[in-house]
Amino acid sequence: MFIINPDIKNYIKDLSRKIKIEDEEIISQLERYADETDFPIINREVGLLIHLITKLKKPKLVVELGSGFGYSAYWFAKAMEDGKVVLIDYQEKNIEKAKELFEKTNLTDKAIFEVGDAVEIAKKYQNIDILFLDLEKSRYLEAIKQLENNLNQNALIIADNTLWYGNVVNPQDNKSKIVAQFNQYMFENYLSVLIPIRDGVLIAYKD
Amino acid sequence: MFIINPDIKNYIKDLSRKIKIEDEEIISQLERYADETDFPIINREVGLLIHLITKLKKPKLVVELGSGFGYSAYWFAKAMEDGKVVLIDYQEKNIEKAKELFEKTNLTDKAIFEVGDAVEIAKKYQNIDILFLDLEKSRYLEAIKQLENNLNQNALIIADNTLWYGNVVNPQDNKSKIVAQFNQYMFENYLSVLIPIRDGVLIAYKD
Ligand SMILES: C[S@@+](CC[C@H](N)C(=O)[O-])C[C@H]1O[C@@H](n2cnc3c(N)ncnc32)[C@H](O)[C@@H]1O
Ligand SMILES: C[S@@+](CC[C@H](N)C(=O)[O-])C[C@H]1O[C@@H](n2cnc3c(N)ncnc32)[C@H](O)[C@@H]1O
Repeated sequence: MFIINPDIKNYIKDLSRKIKIEDEEIISQLERYADETDFPIINREVGLLIHLITKLKKPKLVVELGSGFGYSAYWFAKAMEDGKVVLIDYQEKNIEKAKELFEKTNLTDKAIFEVGDAVEIAKKYQNIDILFLDLEKSRYLEAIKQLENNLNQNALIIADNTLWYGNVVNPQDNKSKIVAQFNQYMFENYLSVLIPIRDGVLIAYKD
Repeated sequence: MFIINPDIKNYIKDLSRKIKIEDEEIISQLERYADETDFPIINREVGLLIHLITKLKKPKLVVELGSGFGYSAYWFAKAMEDGKVVLIDYQEKNIEKAKELFEKTNLTDKAIFEVGDAVEIAKKYQNIDILFLDLEKSRYLEAIKQLENNLNQNALIIADNTLWYGNVVNPQDNKSKIVAQFNQYMFENYLSVLIPIRDGVLIAYKD
């Protein structure tokens, strides 16, 4: 099942490449690396979207659940004038790679790096302005429910993979069911939109 | 050519209906009216998206080129704490209907109504925070070029129908060519994203 018409997808991808970014070489190298090693990162289009949203929101505190090697965190941090992005991953080697990326792009002063369970660590942070979910899909619903009290007024929740390859339409397995329940919960409780780029990006506003 | 997989489209549509809105009756009646009369308005999903974006942006001045009977303007105005939305359409009967909508939803104090050519009238307004394009597609490129100096710092440009039924992928006729040129121009000059909901919504940020 494809989500967007492949021609449209390529059209938008080609357009996105026209946007000049300062760290083009470093970022496109990371994109190739992710591709070669099959490491699931958000792509350029989703990166630009969260970058734009972050410029509008002007957050003081962004908390990422599942940062991998820091590709998505780059797009948040690069859009922030001040404040911090908390990168969390339970794999130490990912966080080490993320530190390298932030060093190379001069963003280290905007980052806090944490190794461990994302939900548990995130609980330490209050007044979260943007909460980004990209951890195991089976934990999406639990994650938002456990962290709701840590959100600031008018916070944004951004979640990746909310179409889960299209499986949410008719969910059969456990992960698909939980992502579908998560979507339903978000639309019932927040001003939400589900943007069908890549694998579906949900953006929710705490009204 | 379809843009999004129809199952995904319906899935997102159904989710969007879960969001409670204050003027549900008035708004869903307008949606039915547009449907019955084949009047092209943005739909609920696009409405919610521009509503969310407006809450983040907090504009003082929104200018719409091609307001029709005010459906899209409703979503802007409803998200604004203060400031004004300028509704422009060259058909007086559309603007009359828009006035009714704004009366019914208690938004009249947030609106300025104008009848005439949208680009010409928009030129009177300085410091535009959000410029919304939904006029004749053949005028998209000209419109942005003529109004660039009227944009505020960090303004947003939001344009509807930027996939133009998918025709921009391989543009044959004049309108499709101009919309494709518009997209290219926007991605070359602004931080832009093209969101494939409905007929394609471009959101561009003046960095
Ligand atoms: C999809 S990848 C993240 C990609 C990253 N957000 C990006 O787009 O650049 C998911 C990451 O989450 C981590 N992860 C999954 N579940 C986690 C959990 N419960 N706590 C911490 N990290 C987790 C995995 O180790 C993996 O690196
Ligand atoms: C697609 S409809 C607008 C729908 C409206 N934005 C909505 O989503 O609710 C386009 C409208 O633009 C108006 N229009 C087109 N070109 C125009 C122009 N150059 N100046 C003023 N109005 C124009 C048409 O009369 C029509 O009502």
